[in-house]
Amino acid sequence: MTQSKRFFSDNTASVCPEILEAITAANRGLTIAYGDDPWTQRLDEVLGEFFATEVRAFAVATGTAANSLALATMAPPYGAIYCHPEAHIAVDECGAPGFFSGGAQLERIEGGNAKLSAAALAAALDGHAVSVHSVQPAAVSISQATELGTAYRPAEVAALTEVARAHGLHVHMDGARFANAVRYLDCHPGDVTWRAGVDVLSFGATKNGALGAEAVVFFHLGLVRDFELRRKRAGHLLSKSRFVSAQLLAYVESGVWRRNAERANAFARRLGQAAGKRLLHPVEANEVFIRLGAEGKASLRAAGFEFYDWGSAASGAARLVASWDQDERHVEALCAALTAM
Amino acid sequence: MTQSKRFFSDNTASVCPEILEAITAANRGLTIAYGDDPWTQRLDEVLGEFFATEVRAFAVATGTAANSLALATMAPPYGAIYCHPEAHIAVDECGAPGFFSGGAQLERIEGGNAKLSAAALAAALDGHAVSVHSVQPAAVSISQATELGTAYRPAEVAALTEVARAHGLHVHMDGARFANAVRYLDCHPGDVTWRAGVDVLSFGATKNGALGAEAVVFFHLGLVRDFELRRKRAGHLLSKSRFVSAQLLAYVESGVWRRNAERANAFARRLGQAAGKRLLHPVEANEVFIRLGAEGKASLRAAGFEFYDWGSAASGAARLVASWDQDERHVEALCAALTAM
Amino acid sequence: MTQSKRFFSDNTASVCPEILEAITAANRGLTIAYGDDPWTQRLDEVLGEFFATEVRAFAVATGTAANSLALATMAPPYGAIYCHPEAHIAVDECGAPGFFSGGAQLERIEGGNAKLSAAALAAALDGHAVSVHSVQPAAVSISQATELGTAYRPAEVAALTEVARAHGLHVHMDGARFANAVRYLDCHPGDVTWRAGVDVLSFGATKNGALGAEAVVFFHLGLVRDFELRRKRAGHLLSKSRFVSAQLLAYVESGVWRRNAERANAFARRLGQAAGKRLLHPVEANEVFIRLGAEGKASLRAAGFEFYDWGSAASGAARLVASWDQDERHVEALCAALTAM
Amino acid sequence: MTQSKRFFSDNTASVCPEILEAITAANRGLTIAYGDDPWTQRLDEVLGEFFATEVRAFAVATGTAANSLALATMAPPYGAIYCHPEAHIAVDECGAPGFFSGGAQLERIEGGNAKLSAAALAAALDGHAVSVHSVQPAAVSISQATELGTAYRPAEVAALTEVARAHGLHVHMDGARFANAVRYLDCHPGDVTWRAGVDVLSFGATKNGALGAEAVVFFHLGLVRDFELRRKRAGHLLSKSRFVSAQLLAYVESGVWRRNAERANAFARRLGQAAGKRLLHPVEANEVFIRLGAEGKASLRAAGFEFYDWGSAASGAARLVASWDQDERHVEALCAALTAM
Repeated sequence: MTQSKRFFSDNTASVCPEILEAITAANRGLTIAYGDDPWTQRLDEVLGEFFATEVRAFAVATGTAANSLALATMAPPYGAIYCHPEAHIAVDECGAPGFFSGGAQLERIEGGNAKLSAAALAAALDGHAVSVHSVQPAAVSISQATELGTAYRPAEVAALTEVARAHGLHVHMDGARFANAVRYLDCHPGDVTWRAGVDVLSFGATKNGALGAEAVVFFHLGLVRDFELRRKRAGHLLSKSRFVSAQLLAYVESGVWRRNAERANAFARRLGQAAGKRLLHPVEANEVFIRLGAEGKASLRAAGFEFYDWGSAASGAARLVASWDQDERHVEALCAALTAM
Repeated sequence: MTQSKRFFSDNTASVCPEILEAITAANRGLTIAYGDDPWTQRLDEVLGEFFATEVRAFAVATGTAANSLALATMAPPYGAIYCHPEAHIAVDECGAPGFFSGGAQLERIEGGNAKLSAAALAAALDGHAVSVHSVQPAAVSISQATELGTAYRPAEVAALTEVARAHGLHVHMDGARFANAVRYLDCHPGDVTWRAGVDVLSFGATKNGALGAEAVVFFHLGLVRDFELRRKRAGHLLSKSRFVSAQLLAYVESGVWRRNAERANAFARRLGQAAGKRLLHPVEANEVFIRLGAEGKASLRAAGFEFYDWGSAASGAARLVASWDQDERHVEALCAALTAM
Repeated sequence: MTQSKRFFSDNTASVCPEILEAITAANRGLTIAYGDDPWTQRLDEVLGEFFATEVRAFAVATGTAANSLALATMAPPYGAIYCHPEAHIAVDECGAPGFFSGGAQLERIEGGNAKLSAAALAAALDGHAVSVHSVQPAAVSISQATELGTAYRPAEVAALTEVARAHGLHVHMDGARFANAVRYLDCHPGDVTWRAGVDVLSFGATKNGALGAEAVVFFHLGLVRDFELRRKRAGHLLSKSRFVSAQLLAYVESGVWRRNAERANAFARRLGQAAGKRLLHPVEANEVFIRLGAEGKASLRAAGFEFYDWGSAASGAARLVASWDQDERHVEALCAALTAM
Repeated sequence: MTQSKRFFSDNTASVCPEILEAITAANRGLTIAYGDDPWTQRLDEVLGEFFATEVRAFAVATGTAANSLALATMAPPYGAIYCHPEAHIAVDECGAPGFFSGGAQLERIEGGNAKLSAAALAAALDGHAVSVHSVQPAAVSISQATELGTAYRPAEVAALTEVARAHGLHVHMDGARFANAVRYLDCHPGDVTWRAGVDVLSFGATKNGALGAEAVVFFHLGLVRDFELRRKRAGHLLSKSRFVSAQLLAYVESGVWRRNAERANAFARRLGQAAGKRLLHPVEANEVFIRLGAEGKASLRAAGFEFYDWGSAASGAARLVASWDQDERHVEALCAALTAM
């Protein structure tokens, strides 16, 4: 079946069995809505154990909502939010941070492999003359794994957050592919988040096996204050919250977060090795960026492989994303095709 | 089990089997995300057949999102949105219409049984001096069924929309309990919507058996223009859209919309009859508003029945909501308790 | 000259000589812009003396800006702002509070003579069930003088602010005609503001002799925090601030605030007496509301008097506003015409 | 007097006599407020003659308001606004475009001498993959003169607007120093605006002799539609509009726009010549950017000259702005000091 040769995105994946079972198991009887249910009430505790610290965690249905609701609690309408030019919040969310925050301004900072460096952040902040005429530096947002499939080391995150803290900025991490990064780093989830100074994490599960579940995890509990009101007001407080909370609980408690990420990462690693010199960025999570050229793309597509161009069609670059439920035979076939090029 | 004596809200209900099956059935293979999947691509057609006219339909996860996204396409930031003081958008959505529209202003119009009358709307519009100093009348939003469990007749809707049209207003219907109203009215879904002049309907399934699925149904296709961008920007474009679309398809195609509404309405009707003179509003959908007094409430609660006060605790009024999966024995028990009071 | 028989509004008035002189006097040499000029730097001190307490005062060019910037510092986007249905912010500012606050919701409370009573405010707040689903009560805004030309007594303001404080609300006073009210009350400016619990005052000078100058006066200094950023961001930080500050200084220091208000009030009082039984509201400032009927209006207009209908043209009601530079002979002529009716 | 050795900004200048006289002349009698006065009613005609085409012109008090109100009529909340990284709207307006538009996103495009080139704009637009996930390219904003004191030639503007038009973008020109640019270019005001494809111009007078007056000039009349409502809603419809309109009329009709710009430009030219190799950008309007070094700055400041650092204090760069009412002897003294360095 041609369909399963899709390497478009991990969003194309299905829901993994453990999570679908958890949804089904939560489907019993009448339960108070809007979060006063037994599943949602366990979220803080279960995610607190996962991160090994006290947290407040809130379930939402999309990553865009998680990111922008988090940022709106961190940045006033006249705030500046620092991010990489490739950041999902800057490129792929139709301006959501501006909408949720009431007009906060994105300030982009370049950096290799889609990473912000502490030095570049410091330079940007030092170069930003703060007065009543300027937007006020308020937050920095980094992606883990990044949009180019790389992962910040704990020390890189810590260096960044130190600069941020010194300038009074809050730190947000877009963890749409957080599990993939943690698996690659082989570290504790706390190591690249609160222990490294992250205030709020968008903890994604959807791309890694859930139906639609992202947790906004607050390590900085003082920021929770207006989050709940913003969430409701934005239509992101789900009435039957048990079903999204049950997904998150299963994701963490069953260990599928790790197993699925491992599988996707392994596939990507194999694709990266097969790509050889064509590789554009290190493969550290489940995404592979390669130089294919027009001909290369055409030949792979003719063989039934589906993937997105990266940048313009003319650029010759392509993005391959491996998801947890990719058919292993198709990964092998794609590796073979890449090797043969 | 005490738990199932809950008459808090139809949001407490579980997911009905047909819809859970549809979710499970959609969970196969890799499917393009963000709406380019076979389920989502059938939405327009299936809902078009349901309403017997051409529509554009968009799935979102909550009623608040459906209502406010719809209104934001209908009202500019400097617009006025007319509604009943009891409207969900005015009371229960934490100011969502103001957020989504960029500050549009709600103008409340009183009316018996939570209904807006054409005459009251006309009076309000005639009394609103439109100039550059005033907000600009832009939309009217009515709820079907209303927040007090009553249903607009097709002719009532038509009379309202005629006034609205004459003043250049778009018409939105909050159909969080649309199925309950249509069942009561025993009419075609088109009769109280597009045939009666409604431009956009928030077509709710969550309260009536879905896991979390609401469709924003555009009868006025010219309004679709910026909806999709607003939806994405607000974090309401679900990546794994197939699962919300599959719910909506099952809801409509299997007929559970009707069966579930019928069951809930029937329960409410029985409760209403048992309440007798205590009844505060006609029971036309699945909600029952009764005068109980402090003692009456206490005695029902002592017997394990759970329900919300209506208005302040001191008011003596209560709201009982019957959902599709209410245990019939508990309904009978509550009827008996009411009769005995 | 027909032109001067205008009783449309005190906005039609010219600039009084003392204020025009102050503008001219400020026009010397190069002065640092955006408020770092000697005039602006005296504002806090001079207004502090005027109100007999420490204040922070900020000049803006319009009353709409003053009101909405003040309210935006007091109410979060998910806040509720309580006001009278006739309030300028609700009726005449094209939805400005929603714009500046990012969508805060107006909650109207009825009251005779356009006044909010403490009891009505308490009832509204007690009837507002506060939860994550509702907008959060944040501020109350009252007008002094009111939109119907009446003035709150200090004790009335104090009673209102006590209720507000008990519910955690900030208190804003729209003082577009503040001088007229204070003159009528014959009290100290502090008596109806900070001594009575007002947090922020929009202190209008434009209607009473200035060219375009309103001060946002903060008695609650803790609220100043984000005001300056909101002001700049909204385009209300004037580059040549000296000219607006000079107006405010002259307005207060020269005593024209009092003299002009006295003159306008006296004219209105005479018109009110002449109107006799036609009077709809007590004349306490410089506005007169009368029942004229279609014929009465027509005959006055035929005689060259200009004024606005109040409510719809059909209502038969009219508003007459006396400004400080009304020609006394025209006031006399209008009194005579009213007496003769 | 040390005070007049200020080269901080043209905002420090006083009001030129012709404009102050126009204000005084407008101060007669009672005039209908909010724009229905004889001065405001002539604006369209007078500015239409000035630009030699039909226009709709609206007076506001600040450049920030002019720019952001214009942009808000051109870009939806989900729009992208292209500008240079040095643009006033990006750097000096505290995020105003995001506020007025409801969250539109700025996209910066580099270019020498603070200019956007047609090629760079085309590249940026071609590189922006437009989908429901991205902000939608909506407008481009250029500054004339630029923030680095250079001026776009008519052909440069035309080339830019051609690219913009081909991609469906509206074109805004921030003309805070429009007169300075036109004087330098020695062209007709229409040549660098509507004849070159500009849709809306922020036509500044404040920096060039007015008290506080900027006109938003619409060449694209179809864009006027919601401007007036946005202006009122933002508190920028001045009640005593005659005084701002009178300034604009005098500015254009008396020819002071040209005379003042000529004087300021001539001063800047002389300073630029004196600066010699220290010059960082061509002097084409009334701003001069020079490399001074810490010592150079200190010595000039010790001699009583006041000016701002450009960039960080450490950069060694400085900005000198010449205004129309600079004392010629101070310009000469500064030239001598620069020459002697």
